[in-house]
Amino acid sequence: MALIVQKYGGTSMGSPERIGAVADRVGRARAEGHQVVVVVSAMSGETDRLIKLAKSISARPPAREMDVLLATGEQASIALLAMALAERGVPARSFTGAQVHILTDSAHSKARILDIDDRRLRASLDAGEVAVVAGFQGVDQDGSITTLGRGGSDTTAVALAAALKADECQIYTDVDGVYTTDPRVEPRARRLDRITFEEMLEMASLGAKVLQIRSVEFAGKYKVPLRVLSSFADGPGTLITLEERGVEDPLISGIAFNRDEAQITVAGIPDRPGVASAIFGPIARANIEVDVIVQSIGQDGLTTMSFTVHRNEYPAAMSLLGGIAAELGARSVGGDDQIAKISLVGVGMRSHAGVAATMFDALAAEGINIRMISTSEIKISVIVDEKYVELAVRTLHEAFGLASPAV
Amino acid sequence: MALIVQKYGGTSMGSPERIGAVADRVGRARAEGHQVVVVVSAMSGETDRLIKLAKSISARPPAREMDVLLATGEQASIALLAMALAERGVPARSFTGAQVHILTDSAHSKARILDIDDRRLRASLDAGEVAVVAGFQGVDQDGSITTLGRGGSDTTAVALAAALKADECQIYTDVDGVYTTDPRVEPRARRLDRITFEEMLEMASLGAKVLQIRSVEFAGKYKVPLRVLSSFADGPGTLITLEERGVEDPLISGIAFNRDEAQITVAGIPDRPGVASAIFGPIARANIEVDVIVQSIGQDGLTTMSFTVHRNEYPAAMSLLGGIAAELGARSVGGDDQIAKISLVGVGMRSHAGVAATMFDALAAEGINIRMISTSEIKISVIVDEKYVELAVRTLHEAFGLASPAV
Repeated sequence: MALIVQKYGGTSMGSPERIGAVADRVGRARAEGHQVVVVVSAMSGETDRLIKLAKSISARPPAREMDVLLATGEQASIALLAMALAERGVPARSFTGAQVHILTDSAHSKARILDIDDRRLRASLDAGEVAVVAGFQGVDQDGSITTLGRGGSDTTAVALAAALKADECQIYTDVDGVYTTDPRVEPRARRLDRITFEEMLEMASLGAKVLQIRSVEFAGKYKVPLRVLSSFADGPGTLITLEERGVEDPLISGIAFNRDEAQITVAGIPDRPGVASAIFGPIARANIEVDVIVQSIGQDGLTTMSFTVHRNEYPAAMSLLGGIAAELGARSVGGDDQIAKISLVGVGMRSHAGVAATMFDALAAEGINIRMISTSEIKISVIVDEKYVELAVRTLHEAFGLASPAV
Repeated sequence: MALIVQKYGGTSMGSPERIGAVADRVGRARAEGHQVVVVVSAMSGETDRLIKLAKSISARPPAREMDVLLATGEQASIALLAMALAERGVPARSFTGAQVHILTDSAHSKARILDIDDRRLRASLDAGEVAVVAGFQGVDQDGSITTLGRGGSDTTAVALAAALKADECQIYTDVDGVYTTDPRVEPRARRLDRITFEEMLEMASLGAKVLQIRSVEFAGKYKVPLRVLSSFADGPGTLITLEERGVEDPLISGIAFNRDEAQITVAGIPDRPGVASAIFGPIARANIEVDVIVQSIGQDGLTTMSFTVHRNEYPAAMSLLGGIAAELGARSVGGDDQIAKISLVGVGMRSHAGVAATMFDALAAEGINIRMISTSEIKISVIVDEKYVELAVRTLHEAFGLASPAV
């Protein structure tokens, strides 16, 4: 008998029929002899409906009251799932975030979990019940309702799994696991049986949006075995583990890509101390996030600074830089919002310097020009023209043999 | 400066615009220097929507989970009203039933309030805030969410007013007060400036559905001055008081009527001890409520028992009585579901025996046959054919001079 935490998102809870299917799945896990805690999100569309209602009352509703409103979505879900379980003869009991004492700070709409008192859940499990817990919500020291931000139900599930020392935290979603890359771009993309937390973090932050990144960090920190599965099909999914890889494992686990970037280049800047902060200080103060940064120094004592921002923030960043470049005496400011970032991710590359060379060769062979390069211990990212995204992903998928599973 | 509890029902909270109008009204009371606690119901239609959702999942959803689901309706309302108040510059804070510790028993869907801890509300009022409290809901000793049953928001408002020793509990509704009778039947019906709790109880239980009867009992018990007002128009409404009437006051305050009744007559029963319990025992065990009961004894030692039940329960009651009448050796069982009850209500009638005579004379003059009569200290009810309802109400309204206000 294992203790399992299962999490179902809004799409899985999207209709009475789907809630019934979730109840069937939960019932099977219990019939196999497991103790089950289920974390659920609001029914798909419900959160948007509530936000619209709030906006029709106030352009800037107070964050505390917004949390009170949004928390009703998950509260309805727990009641409905508990009803569906009871209908199937499975004893169940629903709990709001406050009822299981998911204590958070008071940062409404983006609260962080401080502590969980697992006694009520343990009592429910010991009584033979399935405990159905509202995701996304908690309660602060004053007893006010808080929410963890969009996608926070994943975080709730991982936090409960950690508090209960669960054997596994299963995240049910609309894909059946983590893939070597997006199957819509490379049909030969393959589901990974397992991936490390570090790799998953890079994949998630690079736009492979299977899991909320905060929940992956949390699971890694508390060593909670995390599994991503489909709520619509049976299958083993992908296990996210702390295990080190063996030497036989592939160098590369997956290829992530992100089309939402734009590149800005400030060229011909007289090179003196403080150039970087003169450029990035105002950008940061305007709350514009910068991703890849590359600085190159020419022979004439002039330096060139290239970096990427989110495509939505490209116009704001460009208009800021006009003034900054003039003050710095830079020769020109240029930019391009038709670019994309492609990243190879794999813990195996740590000990293999050849990965970068193989990557650059493969792209060059297809005539794909690399505009920027950025590397970390387990990742190599390149910026290319957006039009090359699909070709580059398929080329790299082939070059690193990702279509055939590891031995 | 007074402390006022205001309660707004689902119709008053029915749309973002109406919630805005409620916020305006609350803001005015506060601008007049009052401390205000507001109790709100779910937006009209919301509770029915949630019930439908539950029924699509389970034919008989567990009562505990039904309460978790239904409580979301009022929770959304408190958040939206607090937002609307903030939008108008009025500091406000929302509270669920659990957050203000409205402790109830565990009778889900019809819980009774055991205790209220007023500390959080006092703190909110002392901080200059309007406290916005979810009606209809509480929390039991285990921390489970409970509901007080339909109309329970009135009860919440009265209970909070009692706990806070409020100066007045104002129930805002879609009528502008309590009338001498239904204006749709008698256009000359007149709004009463005041009415006693006892009279209000009789009026409410007789189908004048302005207030939930339990809230009136509660207000009378705890001596909370209660006022019924319109949320759509300004006006003084009707004050429900504990005051005794003066001799100048009218005998009769109002005329209530109820079309939802049916009459059953078991005739020719051999009269012996235990007849009444042989008839009403099985009826009570089938959860059928009996209203008026009249027994008459004939000269032949046979007795006749007549009584009324809710029209919806007439078929069930008739089928039960077939067997019972045979066992008792009764001559016949008959019934009629096209009847209605009309009642004169007024504390003034206690000391005036002539009221009944005036009533019977007035009805006889119009050829209205009285089928049953039932009296209490402050009420006289008659059962008549349903077709006479309007005529009877107008006749009595005229006979007792209700159209012209008291001196």
